Amino acid sequence: MDRTKLRWNGWGFAAHKDELAAREEVWAWLAGELRMPALLATPARPLEDVELPPGALSAGDRMALAAIVGVDRVRDDKFERAFHTRGRSTLDLLTLRAGDLSAAPDAVVTPRATEEVLAVLALAAEREMAVIPFGGGTGDGVAAPRGPFSAAIALDISQMDRLLALDPVSQIATAQAGIAGPALEKALAAKGFMLGHYPEAFEFSTLGGWIAGDGTGQAANRYGSAKDWLASAQLATPRGLFAAEGPLKDLLIGSQGRFGVITEATLRVRRLPVVTGQRAYLFRDFASGIAAVRDAAQAEIPTVLLRLSDAEETRFWHGYSQAGKAKGLAARLMRRYLDWRGFGEKASGLVARFEGEATSVSRARRDFAAIVKKHGALSFRVDEPWKKSAFFAPYLRDSLLDRGVGYDAIETAASWSKLESVYGAVQGALESAIAASVPREGAKGVVMGRVGPSTANCANLVFTYVFPRALKNDVEQAAAIKKAAMDAIAASGPATDRAGADVRRAVKMALDPKGVLNPAA
Amino acid sequence: MDRTKLRWNGWGFAAHKDELAAREEVWAWLAGELRMPALLATPARPLEDVELPPGALSAGDRMALAAIVGVDRVRDDKFERAFHTRGRSTLDLLTLRAGDLSAAPDAVVTPRATEEVLAVLALAAEREMAVIPFGGGTGDGVAAPRGPFSAAIALDISQMDRLLALDPVSQIATAQAGIAGPALEKALAAKGFMLGHYPEAFEFSTLGGWIAGDGTGQAANRYGSAKDWLASAQLATPRGLFAAEGPLKDLLIGSQGRFGVITEATLRVRRLPVVTGQRAYLFRDFASGIAAVRDAAQAEIPTVLLRLSDAEETRFWHGYSQAGKAKGLAARLMRRYLDWRGFGEKASGLVARFEGEATSVSRARRDFAAIVKKHGALSFRVDEPWKKSAFFAPYLRDSLLDRGVGYDAIETAASWSKLESVYGAVQGALESAIAASVPREGAKGVVMGRVGPSTANCANLVFTYVFPRALKNDVEQAAAIKKAAMDAIAASGPATDRAGADVRRAVKMALDPKGVLNPAA
Repeated sequence: MDRTKLRWNGWGFAAHKDELAAREEVWAWLAGELRMPALLATPARPLEDVELPPGALSAGDRMALAAIVGVDRVRDDKFERAFHTRGRSTLDLLTLRAGDLSAAPDAVVTPRATEEVLAVLALAAEREMAVIPFGGGTGDGVAAPRGPFSAAIALDISQMDRLLALDPVSQIATAQAGIAGPALEKALAAKGFMLGHYPEAFEFSTLGGWIAGDGTGQAANRYGSAKDWLASAQLATPRGLFAAEGPLKDLLIGSQGRFGVITEATLRVRRLPVVTGQRAYLFRDFASGIAAVRDAAQAEIPTVLLRLSDAEETRFWHGYSQAGKAKGLAARLMRRYLDWRGFGEKASGLVARFEGEATSVSRARRDFAAIVKKHGALSFRVDEPWKKSAFFAPYLRDSLLDRGVGYDAIETAASWSKLESVYGAVQGALESAIAASVPREGAKGVVMGRVGPSTANCANLVFTYVFPRALKNDVEQAAAIKKAAMDAIAASGPATDRAGADVRRAVKMALDPKGVLNPAA
Repeated sequence: MDRTKLRWNGWGFAAHKDELAAREEVWAWLAGELRMPALLATPARPLEDVELPPGALSAGDRMALAAIVGVDRVRDDKFERAFHTRGRSTLDLLTLRAGDLSAAPDAVVTPRATEEVLAVLALAAEREMAVIPFGGGTGDGVAAPRGPFSAAIALDISQMDRLLALDPVSQIATAQAGIAGPALEKALAAKGFMLGHYPEAFEFSTLGGWIAGDGTGQAANRYGSAKDWLASAQLATPRGLFAAEGPLKDLLIGSQGRFGVITEATLRVRRLPVVTGQRAYLFRDFASGIAAVRDAAQAEIPTVLLRLSDAEETRFWHGYSQAGKAKGLAARLMRRYLDWRGFGEKASGLVARFEGEATSVSRARRDFAAIVKKHGALSFRVDEPWKKSAFFAPYLRDSLLDRGVGYDAIETAASWSKLESVYGAVQGALESAIAASVPREGAKGVVMGRVGPSTANCANLVFTYVFPRALKNDVEQAAAIKKAAMDAIAASGPATDRAGADVRRAVKMALDPKGVLNPAA
């Protein structure tokens, strides 16, 4: 993937055409949702207008790095530094769009081999340079630190991107950690296999980032998260190369590059599915949808994806799809039918997806249909291919950011018995925090919740929220809203994981005694 | 469970009647198997004949312990110290039977509450007493250390044995870690739930021991191991009480009490099955059995247990069951039929077990039948209830030890593509080591292998071996045989987990800086 063709302050390719920008009927509808008179254009600051902090890499360090990776793989031009300044969380994007590049690394180093990574880390420890491991840069946790370092370098491993081995008998594959989602799945598919980790950032994120960031895949009901599919990893640290298999493997998941650079990962893979299928359902309310999803999880029905939207998310996306459309007779009749059947404003939508052998898929569909029927749902056909919508959100976010609108999401998990109380607490916290920060009297946000991947014991809860930005201080506004949600999550969950923090500190000391690895994460 | 009614140097209740002892036809058959002229009685040394090292607990420390748990819960009588001297591995039993109680703790402390455990650990750290956490004492890793400690106390948590909470909606239960297998399953069953962790030591081992020892349950195909069913734990350490949830939870599994005392565990449980079923199969050889088990695992057929014996194990247990019986016409006809069908001396037996809802069990049986048929197996009814044989091995071992015969087992795991080469290497190492150590020319051992719980990627391999003991140095003999197997496993597996050792050392320092917890483990 050619990095220079990507956006440094947004999602995807610079050449990507934002088709939403011109659909004024959508913006009019959204302005109404947010109780704003209009949504004006708020373009990001272009790179030419932005200042970077002066690079702090000494000529000697630059030469030493060039001696390891080659002179053309130590870059400090404006685009490279800007591209690697931050991740692509909403807070990151608001910061970048405002032209704040204060967290830029002094240089970007792009190794091609594990030996080069090791040599760079040894050099960094010796010369006290901070190292920020960088995969796709789609998450957060990739800012350069302020502090007692001679320089900060982004170590971009996205060119270590090969599938190295596949054991078809044991269904295990090994790949370099810089491989991006589509390239990994393509290489596996060529041999009849798949991994199935599909975060929203799938197109641009890397295998190593999926591990270090511990993101949730949308098809995790079947294909799991890193803790399920990661068999072992190779970790380069300032103290040398480690095979991460037992506890160190577990610690790498979510480590944000603070223990070392994941250079290779060995994965449990699966045979490509023979058939796939999808279906949508409508429940009278969120609670009956939750009960159905729980029953399906506890009956171990092998769904690939069950995504249950609350009433607000169901209503919002329906409104989005209908924006500007005249309400035809069929739509009016359908509405009347749904009202008559009791599917009013509390109705909650569910999308279910199935993949596998023909027999197991047809069984799963039948078993699942019986469960949703018990909970009173209506069933609908889905025509749109799943992957068309699965990776859409980060593009939509850019469109919204260009029109003065904030868009962010936060995720947590709760046991089934606590799910509804956690949902209520976080939703309430988000609504209050947005109400306290809107740029004009009467304006409001839209807070949507959904149940994502689940197990027999617990489920993921994802909150997506859209709000009118207070343009003069939108970074602080977005941070305050997110913090309110995180505080609500912390208050409704178990106490802080003090022991986990102790363990991580002890391990960090053992692997990176000088503390050069991602100090700002 | 009343500890004073258990054997201090063997398995189970002292009152347990060894029905095998008098079956001379079995001993004659086994002597033939081992090429020994006869198997003479080799009784263990009785407790009255055995000397214990003098207790090193000072009067002051004893009073301080008594102030925490009560005076009757600090014991140092001969039986208590002998009972807690070692675990119940074969090496432990040979040592105990020879009257070697040099690893006895100076006292046994039996707390009833987490606060008492914490206070004992704080006192131990202050006064530099070693603490050996003790659950059921059925594994290994419970010997008192030699070294710079003022005393060594066994901290027996078997009276912390209550089910504390059950969340039926989330299918999560919390229990004190000293609860033994049968009591835990009984308490869960009273509420309609089960855990399903059935190691051979199930009857006498505890929940905390299952975690700290990371044992394999025989029904792990469905019910998993600690890494699957443990949601979180409470850990008492010299530095205080920790909620072990993230990496610390993972580190506790297999920790042998070296990080602290597990006082409570929160478990993912399941609804009791509605139906259960069992079936036996005979394959022409081990390799076709392995292929069938692998196909079943990779097709995700929800079996509870698939236990595939190699030809030697199949032959040995058939011989055991037929010992002394005249071969009737039916048996001779069956033998002729099997020979004719190609099931000769390489034939390998498989037992499969299914549990769950009626529909899912009947589907699983049907799907599994199709797979074994593809691999050319014959199918047989099984009449004996599974649990009758599941916990039989440790009793059999005592019977064998009483007749000059050694019995031990060793377990490893291998990916499917390496399974047969690991199997061959370990089997060969065991046979050579036994041949090098038999007490008389021409005598031999029996080395049996089987495939235990498996996943889509790998399977457990269990080797059970029976050998004539060199009575004058049988501890060394048994240790040498086991070491040969472990060396073969190490040579055929990945390199030592150096990083894991570093991580564990760092965590140990953080939680137990004085190093008082189980120093000999």
